[in-house]
Amino acid sequence: MNQYRVLIDANDEKGLVHKVSNIFFNYNLNILSNSEFVDKELNKFFMRSVVEGAINKKELGVAINTVLPENASVKIVEPKKKNIIIMVTKELHALGDILIRHEAGELEANILAVISNYDKLESLVGKFAIPYISISHEGVEREEHEKKIIECINSYEDVDYIVLAKYMRILTPRFVEAFEDKILNIHHSFLPAFIGANPYKQAYERGVKIIGATAHFVNNNLDEGPIIAQEVIHVNHAYSWKDMQRSGKDVEKVVLSRALKLALEDRIFVYENKTVIF
Amino acid sequence: MNQYRVLIDANDEKGLVHKVSNIFFNYNLNILSNSEFVDKELNKFFMRSVVEGAINKKELGVAINTVLPENASVKIVEPKKKNIIIMVTKELHALGDILIRHEAGELEANILAVISNYDKLESLVGKFAIPYISISHEGVEREEHEKKIIECINSYEDVDYIVLAKYMRILTPRFVEAFEDKILNIHHSFLPAFIGANPYKQAYERGVKIIGATAHFVNNNLDEGPIIAQEVIHVNHAYSWKDMQRSGKDVEKVVLSRALKLALEDRIFVYENKTVIF
Amino acid sequence: MNQYRVLIDANDEKGLVHKVSNIFFNYNLNILSNSEFVDKELNKFFMRSVVEGAINKKELGVAINTVLPENASVKIVEPKKKNIIIMVTKELHALGDILIRHEAGELEANILAVISNYDKLESLVGKFAIPYISISHEGVEREEHEKKIIECINSYEDVDYIVLAKYMRILTPRFVEAFEDKILNIHHSFLPAFIGANPYKQAYERGVKIIGATAHFVNNNLDEGPIIAQEVIHVNHAYSWKDMQRSGKDVEKVVLSRALKLALEDRIFVYENKTVIF
Amino acid sequence: MNQYRVLIDANDEKGLVHKVSNIFFNYNLNILSNSEFVDKELNKFFMRSVVEGAINKKELGVAINTVLPENASVKIVEPKKKNIIIMVTKELHALGDILIRHEAGELEANILAVISNYDKLESLVGKFAIPYISISHEGVEREEHEKKIIECINSYEDVDYIVLAKYMRILTPRFVEAFEDKILNIHHSFLPAFIGANPYKQAYERGVKIIGATAHFVNNNLDEGPIIAQEVIHVNHAYSWKDMQRSGKDVEKVVLSRALKLALEDRIFVYENKTVIF
Repeated sequence: MNQYRVLIDANDEKGLVHKVSNIFFNYNLNILSNSEFVDKELNKFFMRSVVEGAINKKELGVAINTVLPENASVKIVEPKKKNIIIMVTKELHALGDILIRHEAGELEANILAVISNYDKLESLVGKFAIPYISISHEGVEREEHEKKIIECINSYEDVDYIVLAKYMRILTPRFVEAFEDKILNIHHSFLPAFIGANPYKQAYERGVKIIGATAHFVNNNLDEGPIIAQEVIHVNHAYSWKDMQRSGKDVEKVVLSRALKLALEDRIFVYENKTVIF
Repeated sequence: MNQYRVLIDANDEKGLVHKVSNIFFNYNLNILSNSEFVDKELNKFFMRSVVEGAINKKELGVAINTVLPENASVKIVEPKKKNIIIMVTKELHALGDILIRHEAGELEANILAVISNYDKLESLVGKFAIPYISISHEGVEREEHEKKIIECINSYEDVDYIVLAKYMRILTPRFVEAFEDKILNIHHSFLPAFIGANPYKQAYERGVKIIGATAHFVNNNLDEGPIIAQEVIHVNHAYSWKDMQRSGKDVEKVVLSRALKLALEDRIFVYENKTVIF
Repeated sequence: MNQYRVLIDANDEKGLVHKVSNIFFNYNLNILSNSEFVDKELNKFFMRSVVEGAINKKELGVAINTVLPENASVKIVEPKKKNIIIMVTKELHALGDILIRHEAGELEANILAVISNYDKLESLVGKFAIPYISISHEGVEREEHEKKIIECINSYEDVDYIVLAKYMRILTPRFVEAFEDKILNIHHSFLPAFIGANPYKQAYERGVKIIGATAHFVNNNLDEGPIIAQEVIHVNHAYSWKDMQRSGKDVEKVVLSRALKLALEDRIFVYENKTVIF
Repeated sequence: MNQYRVLIDANDEKGLVHKVSNIFFNYNLNILSNSEFVDKELNKFFMRSVVEGAINKKELGVAINTVLPENASVKIVEPKKKNIIIMVTKELHALGDILIRHEAGELEANILAVISNYDKLESLVGKFAIPYISISHEGVEREEHEKKIIECINSYEDVDYIVLAKYMRILTPRFVEAFEDKILNIHHSFLPAFIGANPYKQAYERGVKIIGATAHFVNNNLDEGPIIAQEVIHVNHAYSWKDMQRSGKDVEKVVLSRALKLALEDRIFVYENKTVIF
């Protein structure tokens, strides 16, 4: 018995659920869970099914492809640990939350390495027997610095996701393109409010009554990639921006870990700079 | 072109989605929305589909029934206004919220009447040209009082739901049985905490930091019917129980209106004292 | 026995609480509630006390003024109903929520009138025996239209607040200046995200996972006045922008009513485009 | 310059704020923050001030005591790290969150030791160079087991708090009395709903739409001690009780860490089985 996640992304047309469920039925597959969504405006169909049965991956993929319209995408994914690399700067909370969840067995992930532009978090990461690679940006051109990081990442095989757990430097288009749709970031504001530097200070100055955090895939426009998860907390006039920053950390770590879990479980479809999440 | 809500409740078995979607496909129906859920523990299958096409209701029901296991239930519902009767005592907020939503056209409902054991809210209801029937419980035996209410309700045809919008008297089994699965109630606590009288006072005395409200169908055990919706708000030591009561009203009205909307749109399945909500 | 709300706004200096509480003590006043806040960054002191005792308003004001630094502001307010005028366009929900709360006696307010640029809500407002003045903007210059509204407002005496309950036209600086710090607005987004027109559509297009509403005082920069209250709800990929709009209404009405209540109870201090809320 | 937290708990009477602020003023203290609360029903006054100045602790305490009514309690606390012992069973998440916050310097605490009835978490705790003492309950009478734990705790000096981070055994009255008002617990339900064993299963069976967690001080009645903090998350019909348990962990750890922080910062007053939290 094999278990697969079947991920379908197609132009919508009548009968898609029928045709796909027909295949599941004919192959005598057990459907463990099933989610569909049709974007009526864009006429797009999305489906995520978890199925179980005596069939191999390739055969199932071929069978499903035959009933789908042209240009459809089918992915058959076996549930297994994905390989991730975490990038950080100096802050501990988001990284720490991932390390603890990893230790608890909550994440379907192997953490291949933690890369940082500082050595500050080396001692923490070392405790968990995970490689920590410090690549300082000081005295180095931005391009050169990124080149070193890319080389470091590429020295690992099969990297599924790069998780920016409060990596506080802007990535160049070259970097983003090298790892398209593979970079998750946590931005410490409720996007699209307070794009850019020091969002808590911006929030403080605007006098907002709620602050938040946003996990998103990274694309070439700063803080404008597809949003995966957002969460907020209430604040009031008594919060300095330092207080907002402190309280915000709890939201940041929760939202990033939630988004990472969704990615690891193949629950996210990206299209038109948005996400469908099952 | 007709539109139907197809509501299926069956013992689970392989291929149900396949078989039902097959019928939709064969009759060339357009699927506007589709939700399924399987309770693995109890082996129960639930499905709610909104479909559109040139088929009559009866034919569709028969077709679906032929592919379902024995003891399955299929309901084909046309989207139209349901008839409701609201029961209140003296508090205005929950009733008022329903009246305003009704006025705004947000609810798929005809309000046939408002029944109360006091005349206090008559003037409000009168503004909306809805009949207000005051049936005092004073000087009358409980049985006798309820009998009058039942007669009043039964004087209306096709009553779909009875909405207890802070009706503050306990209903007898006779009443509940007379309108099985048709009575919605709002209880002013986060059930199952603080069952019974004066939940805000109970909450205050226990020193909780969160209070809530629960909308549920009424069955014979006080406050123990299937839960439809719940919501909470944070409180603190500075709240007296009167403050909790005041703040709680905002939660009560939102939760009751949300549950009512779900019921009117045929989104609730009840089984084993629980609800499945699509 | 008189009851007063004492509202102090001063540059901070050592001993302010001491000096003010000294006066309360010497006049043998009972302190029913007391809140202070010091903005360390701007060195500003805010205090709101509710006191009770045998003293007249003027005497208390003079006494407190003598112990405060120069340029301090003291207001002694008796708890009584404030006069408000509500402005709307076509949407019913925010207005309806205020009308119902008013009917329930929840608001310390007299609603003098409802002014609209359409007559759509006249029938609702009429039910509550509140004057409805329809001032159409059609075929009239913006300046001329506003002049008529200003005249209408000025025909009422002692207007404390103008509540924009989804009044969908931009106000000119002349209007805003005519009623400085007196205009409350509800904006249907989580400001500063989605300033301007059709925020739900903007939110939908950005693919956010949370939407919100913001109540604020109106100043001359569109949607940039001091924020009073904000609230959010979670949405997902299945929400069209119409769905967001529909769900957003529930947040809008709650946030506006909450802000209005805070204003009516003299709980808001405005400074530096922010609010302190006790 | 010394900094102190002044914690006052007294029967209420007119002029308390005045008298205490008078002392602060006379000693030329700088007030960094100030909170008061009067429970009108029980006539109790609570105050927490953070002050700074050239005065010693003892002198300040004596000065304040002279102006307070009889039976009042004054504590003058210097902000410094408190000593805590953490007790766990097998679950990692709540402990892990505390360890990471400790590592990040977020907690004003020294973690003296982690005590467990299993050795499962020894490797995690060992990474942080914190003593891990495994005291198995197997084959030992309850009394005997607790005696060993009490001895272990008492082998440390000046233990301020014992934090039950998912310690899954019920404590006897002897244990609770030995560390009165010093034991913090996290209960994995929204108390008082689902007291006792396996609250997620109870919640699942009741069909609730919200689950939660409660941090409280431990007293002799199981799960009935004074509540410090509560938080909830929404669930739906698709959650098995295992899913609820999984999702609940995120709430548990956040609530316990929040309560611990409040305790470490001397922000909690306990009275009448309730808490006042500044």
